[in-house]
Amino acid sequence: MRLIAHGPMAAEVSKAGGIGFIGSGNDQSKLHEQLSDAQSLLSSCPPSQIIRGANDTLPIGVGFLNWGADLDVALPLLKKYRPAAVWLFAPHTIDTLVQWTRETRKATDNASKVWIQVCSVAEALDVARTCEPDVLVIQGVDAGGHGLHQGCSICALLPEAIDALQNAVQNREVKSMPTILAAGGVMEGRGLAAALALGAEGVVMGTRYLVADEAEIRQGYKDEVIRATDGGQTTVRTSVYDQLRRTTEWPKQYGGRSVTNQSYHDAINGMPLEENMRLYNEAAEMGDKGWGPQGRMTTYAGTAVGLVTRLQSAKNITKEVRAEARAVIKNLSDVMSSTGNL
Amino acid sequence: MRLIAHGPMAAEVSKAGGIGFIGSGNDQSKLHEQLSDAQSLLSSCPPSQIIRGANDTLPIGVGFLNWGADLDVALPLLKKYRPAAVWLFAPHTIDTLVQWTRETRKATDNASKVWIQVCSVAEALDVARTCEPDVLVIQGVDAGGHGLHQGCSICALLPEAIDALQNAVQNREVKSMPTILAAGGVMEGRGLAAALALGAEGVVMGTRYLVADEAEIRQGYKDEVIRATDGGQTTVRTSVYDQLRRTTEWPKQYGGRSVTNQSYHDAINGMPLEENMRLYNEAAEMGDKGWGPQGRMTTYAGTAVGLVTRLQSAKNITKEVRAEARAVIKNLSDVMSSTGNL
Repeated sequence: MRLIAHGPMAAEVSKAGGIGFIGSGNDQSKLHEQLSDAQSLLSSCPPSQIIRGANDTLPIGVGFLNWGADLDVALPLLKKYRPAAVWLFAPHTIDTLVQWTRETRKATDNASKVWIQVCSVAEALDVARTCEPDVLVIQGVDAGGHGLHQGCSICALLPEAIDALQNAVQNREVKSMPTILAAGGVMEGRGLAAALALGAEGVVMGTRYLVADEAEIRQGYKDEVIRATDGGQTTVRTSVYDQLRRTTEWPKQYGGRSVTNQSYHDAINGMPLEENMRLYNEAAEMGDKGWGPQGRMTTYAGTAVGLVTRLQSAKNITKEVRAEARAVIKNLSDVMSSTGNL
Repeated sequence: MRLIAHGPMAAEVSKAGGIGFIGSGNDQSKLHEQLSDAQSLLSSCPPSQIIRGANDTLPIGVGFLNWGADLDVALPLLKKYRPAAVWLFAPHTIDTLVQWTRETRKATDNASKVWIQVCSVAEALDVARTCEPDVLVIQGVDAGGHGLHQGCSICALLPEAIDALQNAVQNREVKSMPTILAAGGVMEGRGLAAALALGAEGVVMGTRYLVADEAEIRQGYKDEVIRATDGGQTTVRTSVYDQLRRTTEWPKQYGGRSVTNQSYHDAINGMPLEENMRLYNEAAEMGDKGWGPQGRMTTYAGTAVGLVTRLQSAKNITKEVRAEARAVIKNLSDVMSSTGNL
């Protein structure tokens, strides 16, 4: 949600009972302004409406992309604002995560919780051993935007990672069990209930919030998210869009899942990158018309994009998904009670 | 489960309260014997223990791969044995499914239920419109063995396909809602509970039954299924194994998910197919030692292979998974009741 989720989005999600994130990504030049915005928006809100972080933290999170994020810029801001959560992802090496975890905890007197996103069982174990994060976000291949090229869904990944972590805790290889959240393929209440069944304690959602009123993207992007269906067939995880957008510092094992469009088809049909970039830059001048199946602008989105069918406020999305999940669980339980079986 | 699930496996799963399948695949030369075996095994079982199909059907199913299955051989056997379910998958064109559905229903006086497996929302709608199957099996990318190269998990696919089918029923494009089952990534009770939360009425499982006592595969294959972990990283959907095994009649959009081994690494590193086949054939003479990460024999398995940790009877697998799912749902419901929230 780099360049998309700023202070207003983060504040609205937290006000609705979730925890909203600022997508600071690899560029912290706007982080001060983003945190300051979120703080103002939250301080004008009755205390009863918000979930307060421990130790008087600012009840939002900040997400960093560690292949490019600037620790020196981030630290004084983390110290000043004490966001409830600091999300780390996609370093070139795990040492970067160890350093960010340590420095974040020092700067905030352990007040900010450290969330680290991983995409495999091996990564989950490595990160748990070396960083002892408060939260592990376990991301499956359905996720929109960037994740490992090679992977599996949360159906397989969550239960196996949880079992492996619990074993590691028992064998004293890992100090304590982190909180487990699921990412990738969760768009509404059915997905949330499924993630809880798989062993997660909660979920994170990106694609669904692309169409939130507070998402700072072009209407053309939002329209394309609402138009796209059957995401297993119409989205793809690729590095093509990183090349076109010149975000090529991502470690090579990561690709961004996007709705396929003309840029993508031209790339796989052999159009030279230079020509494809020229056409991309032309499309960027077209405003909302740059998006769509025959368009060239990037629509990062997960495979469950077909479940996003309308524009909504971040607040309503947050409340609706939780209410739906409650109804799903109640229904499953009722069916089981009434039949005495599955 | 072609060449793996025969009469004994099918009978044991059905005796345990599931519905077991014979994997007849694309070669019906053993189907008579397989059905006859299953019938004998089930007739020696007290009636109270088995789920009877409607209209006095044989309470097992038969799975066909429609790119190669022989309708002329199958039909008299379906007529004679009336299996409770006939599973269709992977035709060259949808017309084949229409023909098999019609002929199966005619041969069995509508007694055998027609199950059709699909891998996308578009396929689900096409098949529902043209075949009106009793059951749609919705398969996600986590599945072991063959499925579409391009796809998504059941997290995204199930809810969107269900919504699309329900809309199509409302618009009278589809006559009635088929029963929905999930395939791909479900290995135990957490996965089953998750699939139910996503809207399925049940699941089908393949990989887990590879290690059943009744699975007719080499111990080397079973050992490799138990050894493999972190299947998002260690399995891959590919056509390499089809080439090595000369099962190249699969329509080109399908690949088989397998645990990666030396054959696969050699293939992607450019070894000519002829040399790779020669080494494969040599490995085939080595018995159980032909399997493993440095081996060359194929281990078809889903991404959740890491959750398969021990040999078991088909009966115990079937009972255990259902009991686990009941516990998961009860726990979710209890947590929700005790906190009044999610």
